[in-house]
Amino acid sequence: MKTVTLQVQGMSCQHCVHSIESALKEIGAAGKVDLASNAVEVSFDENRLSLEQIKAAIEEQGYDVV
Amino acid sequence: MKTVTLQVQGMSCQHCVHSIESALKEIGAAGKVDLASNAVEVSFDENRLSLEQIKAAIEEQGYDVV
Repeated sequence: MKTVTLQVQGMSCQHCVHSIESALKEIGAAGKVDLASNAVEVSFDENRLSLEQIKAAIEEQGYDVV
Repeated sequence: MKTVTLQVQGMSCQHCVHSIESALKEIGAAGKVDLASNAVEVSFDENRLSLEQIKAAIEEQGYDVV
């Protein structure tokens, strides 16, 4: 299990938190959004997922990973 | 048909727009959110709905009508 913290732009409310956390859950990762710091902490199995897939899941929801 | 424009706090993104517009539609009103001006323009039938019901529908979504 690996944990990374990504900086993500455009997250503004609890709906955004839900969208991102749900999208990560869907691909088998566990995400925790902190709106105040524009951060998403993601835990995932490196043998099953890549960081690129994590970023893509977030970007598909309409947010920019910086 | 009556149209009022309400000032609403806490609307920050397209998810918020969707929540509010859907909630208004559900009670039989038509809402149009303008994020830039924190405004919600609502058209409704005065014989079927009151302004209080309109405000309650918005507040139930977690936003403050000011």
